[in-house]
Amino acid sequence: MAKEIVLALDAMGGDYAPEVVVRGANLARIRYPGLRFLLFGDEARLAPLLSRFKRLAGDTEIRHADEVIASDEKPVVALRQLRDSSMRRAVDAVHSGEAAGVVSAGNTGALMALAKVVIKTLPGISRPAFASTFPTQRGESVMLDLGANIECDAENLVQFAVMGEVFARTVLGRQRPIIGLLNVGAEELKGTERLQEAAIRLHESELPIEFHGFVEGNDIAEGTVDVIVTDGFTGNVALKTAEGVAVLYTEYLRAAFRRSIISRLGYLLARPALRHFRDRVDPRRYNGATLLGLNGVVVKSHGGTDHKGFANAIGVAVDMISEGFNAKITDELHRLHADHAPEPATVAL
Amino acid sequence: MAKEIVLALDAMGGDYAPEVVVRGANLARIRYPGLRFLLFGDEARLAPLLSRFKRLAGDTEIRHADEVIASDEKPVVALRQLRDSSMRRAVDAVHSGEAAGVVSAGNTGALMALAKVVIKTLPGISRPAFASTFPTQRGESVMLDLGANIECDAENLVQFAVMGEVFARTVLGRQRPIIGLLNVGAEELKGTERLQEAAIRLHESELPIEFHGFVEGNDIAEGTVDVIVTDGFTGNVALKTAEGVAVLYTEYLRAAFRRSIISRLGYLLARPALRHFRDRVDPRRYNGATLLGLNGVVVKSHGGTDHKGFANAIGVAVDMISEGFNAKITDELHRLHADHAPEPATVAL
Repeated sequence: MAKEIVLALDAMGGDYAPEVVVRGANLARIRYPGLRFLLFGDEARLAPLLSRFKRLAGDTEIRHADEVIASDEKPVVALRQLRDSSMRRAVDAVHSGEAAGVVSAGNTGALMALAKVVIKTLPGISRPAFASTFPTQRGESVMLDLGANIECDAENLVQFAVMGEVFARTVLGRQRPIIGLLNVGAEELKGTERLQEAAIRLHESELPIEFHGFVEGNDIAEGTVDVIVTDGFTGNVALKTAEGVAVLYTEYLRAAFRRSIISRLGYLLARPALRHFRDRVDPRRYNGATLLGLNGVVVKSHGGTDHKGFANAIGVAVDMISEGFNAKITDELHRLHADHAPEPATVAL
Repeated sequence: MAKEIVLALDAMGGDYAPEVVVRGANLARIRYPGLRFLLFGDEARLAPLLSRFKRLAGDTEIRHADEVIASDEKPVVALRQLRDSSMRRAVDAVHSGEAAGVVSAGNTGALMALAKVVIKTLPGISRPAFASTFPTQRGESVMLDLGANIECDAENLVQFAVMGEVFARTVLGRQRPIIGLLNVGAEELKGTERLQEAAIRLHESELPIEFHGFVEGNDIAEGTVDVIVTDGFTGNVALKTAEGVAVLYTEYLRAAFRRSIISRLGYLLARPALRHFRDRVDPRRYNGATLLGLNGVVVKSHGGTDHKGFANAIGVAVDMISEGFNAKITDELHRLHADHAPEPATVAL
């Protein structure tokens, strides 16, 4: 991270706000020198919290906001009525240019609505998409959309592919990311018409995109591709299904080790190794779903995360800002549209 | 299992046919006395194989079939051209009434096409659906559709709910199965219009169905409900995503135990317990996706399974037949349609 970056933080969003937000900011500040924060929320609560972290306090400005968007608030209420909420004010700071990005652990629907209406999409992007990284057999990959758009057409999917490719380059550091389109079979004739159309357009595109073709559900954890492109319904179900299986396996494993005194002893001996296993799948490591395609960086932290997870969500925002994520997307979209530009008019003879 | 049951087996389908089919039949025959088989395939290969299992040979009739449907054959070719294939002949035996059900580890698309065209759907069922059981934190559940129908309307989903409920009663032995509709959020306004319509119809139905409402991806492995209802696209992606994560976790665990001599020792001590863990998630235990909604029982075994997995697939067919699965579905559908019958005409005054 070369130059100074200013991030707006919704200090009141999430199950353990504002403590987790302030402690997460403190951890991120140590990791990324040059990072500064605008902290939006209840000043009476934030000031004493912040005073516990001297150095962070020097890099942070508290901006008082009267209201808090509850986790079960309807997005339309958050948008139209709660004009002085901590989340709204943090999003406004990105729109005004005071901050390069915003991180919130609050209400997902409200953040999405505010970001779309206030910050707006990049030129050439019809709809923003939620993206997140996850562990695979080959390292890690990114999947989008994870729930911002329940139904998507071929054009949306192509745009998601472009955004995912840039994300894999800038945040995951892949030189030439490989893109896959999630389907129910790898054969070309499988799936819906919009999937087939999106595949044709990605194959024919002259973008510097490595398009692998269709992939299936098992390819997600296998790491067959670096970027999994899908609609928000399927992506959301796949992500949550994977989370559920991870919890199930962890439970089974715990029960297995408890079966006898000998197996408990085995657990004690293998504990350092099992910690490594646990670290590899630690959900905090993969915290921070990013709303891609906006005129600014918007990262949603899991509402129930701790300060380490929140610091990781801040890290995702920092990577995207310092790597010029949005400028790169805009460049690629220009090229994409140049591909589809009409042929020069010819004179009919 | 009270009375004699005759099953048609496609002896030539699957990666390890016909060995796995014959050995699987032998194992199933021991588990279910009174089970008899029609074995369709290449007699020259089947006769010597079968002669190794004297008792099985006494309960089995070989029916020679000249052709084999390759695993990559197009369903339309399997249907129109390969009229003397082992799979076709086995499906025909269900249609003619010689067998109560068919089990095949062969080409899924071909089996689906043959079953739909030859055996046909039950009265009141528009489309058959693939169902399978899977392990959860509370035991096991069933999910459908897993890929027979890429796009489904509300009526299809309601029919899947009825079939899934009867499956959970007859195969899983649940007294009063709880049904959930897979969505991206539990709130009533989430998801597509067809999901909302299906939910309303299931809530209002006077069927003896315990409808829980919407569930999310993580609820699958948590076992929140006994039956997960979804379209074939989403179900297929969810199932394969879960399989991929299971493999990833197993790999991570293996790598963890290999990290040091001490952790290897820990593994040795915990091995009996870890075997129990492995048994709980053994994919062979959950082998046998059933094509529900047909005038006969059709079970698809995984193509790469061993004889234990194939015997389990046979077990699913036996449970469905001996519990009168199809008669129960027909009963419930009658009641469902009675719910929707027009009100008796009243005289306008």
